Amino acid sequence: MSDDRPIGVFDSGLGGLTVVRHLLRLLPSESIVYLGDTARVPYGSRSPETVRKFARQDAYFLAGHGVKFIVIACNTASALAEEDLAGRLAIPVLGVIKPGAAAAVRLSRGGNIGVIGTRGTISSGSYQRLVRQLLPSARITGQPCPLFVPLAEEGAACSPAAALIAEEYLALLQAAQVDTLILGCTHYPLLEPVIRQTMGSKVMLVDPGRALADQLRCRLEELGLEATGRRPPFHRYFVTDCTAQFQPLAESFLGAPLLGSVEQVDLE
Amino acid sequence: MSDDRPIGVFDSGLGGLTVVRHLLRLLPSESIVYLGDTARVPYGSRSPETVRKFARQDAYFLAGHGVKFIVIACNTASALAEEDLAGRLAIPVLGVIKPGAAAAVRLSRGGNIGVIGTRGTISSGSYQRLVRQLLPSARITGQPCPLFVPLAEEGAACSPAAALIAEEYLALLQAAQVDTLILGCTHYPLLEPVIRQTMGSKVMLVDPGRALADQLRCRLEELGLEATGRRPPFHRYFVTDCTAQFQPLAESFLGAPLLGSVEQVDLE
Repeated sequence: MSDDRPIGVFDSGLGGLTVVRHLLRLLPSESIVYLGDTARVPYGSRSPETVRKFARQDAYFLAGHGVKFIVIACNTASALAEEDLAGRLAIPVLGVIKPGAAAAVRLSRGGNIGVIGTRGTISSGSYQRLVRQLLPSARITGQPCPLFVPLAEEGAACSPAAALIAEEYLALLQAAQVDTLILGCTHYPLLEPVIRQTMGSKVMLVDPGRALADQLRCRLEELGLEATGRRPPFHRYFVTDCTAQFQPLAESFLGAPLLGSVEQVDLE
Repeated sequence: MSDDRPIGVFDSGLGGLTVVRHLLRLLPSESIVYLGDTARVPYGSRSPETVRKFARQDAYFLAGHGVKFIVIACNTASALAEEDLAGRLAIPVLGVIKPGAAAAVRLSRGGNIGVIGTRGTISSGSYQRLVRQLLPSARITGQPCPLFVPLAEEGAACSPAAALIAEEYLALLQAAQVDTLILGCTHYPLLEPVIRQTMGSKVMLVDPGRALADQLRCRLEELGLEATGRRPPFHRYFVTDCTAQFQPLAESFLGAPLLGSVEQVDLE
């Protein structure tokens, strides 16, 4: 069995392109339809009800484009809406939280795990709950880092101000002597140099987007949904708002030039 | 003539409460209906078309609540949507840009004026155009400061990181030796200590929200729209999303406890 329909990926904005980067590398035969809700980004500081409403609109849009699988690239939407979406859709759904938590448990030497993310992700307790399910002896410390998203979006991820803010945010995790740290927001891989410098070289940094790409490959195989490889894959990008900053920002997250069409759509 | 209908005020989020603060002080007999589009904040980095669409939804909502005047507290929406709204509504509309530009021209000693704001406000050129209309000899320097909004919203307006970021953003304005600086975003009055420290004590800082309250008082008189003062004024606050951070953030912008009802509404 195989299936040439595209994989649907959505995110609150463009940060989810750090997840697409791993999909392109690991699943090069797959077509991708990406939706970034750039008119309403960020989701991280909104209420759980509003995030679920936006995530439903995002997922229905992708379903309407005939996708075979829906990837929730946004950590906040994964934390707050994955269960809701899985209950509503006949298409399989995978968020970044489960793969991220599993990777952290696999990589941690002492079971002392930290997680950073938006306020919505951390206060949902999703990473904390999943890590404890997989490793009941785990010690887990969560810390919201709300300023990391605007710093990444403003190209200030490696600035002295980012280093100062990182020191303050990460002090609790340093004090807890975590051996593994989950970068629980799609924007955070861009801050990896600053986070690495603050946390030291011995702490394992986990990128849930990368873990998701691994798990998605297995799920597609299990379900017989892999692309045939007989047709060249296509990539379509949809955004709900398009500004002059779009292209450079998108390419900084994707880590490569943006290939494929970009279209603006209205979900409301 | 007089009119006890409320004044409608809208903003992309809660920053507009810094404008309400001046209205409460200067026009204590007036009732106020406030709408903060907290589900879609910030407007400052969105495209002009999207800002105009959101501003129309905001203004129609207020019009539906029987307001006698619409105040656009958001600098970005004033810059990009005031003209569009004035053309669509039978109710008078006033944004913060015109009063802010007029106050800067009035206060400037040498006509060397700076303006800081969101990317949307600065790149619209609205402040720059209006200042030049009022004072053709003016020298005007604009600078977007996109990280100031999240710093204010995260309670980090007076942090060492904010000081570092302010130094970088304001370097161009210091080099231009501006004598007057327009704080062209509702959030910026919260950063006044840091901006003051960076720019020095001789530069006049202009808060367009305060200038708007003065001008609104005159407009209400001219139009015979002042409240009678015979009934106690009421205050209703509407938001499109309500999180746990709402109350402390709202009160930090308002500079006082929030009196009156708060309701969540859906504009989409």
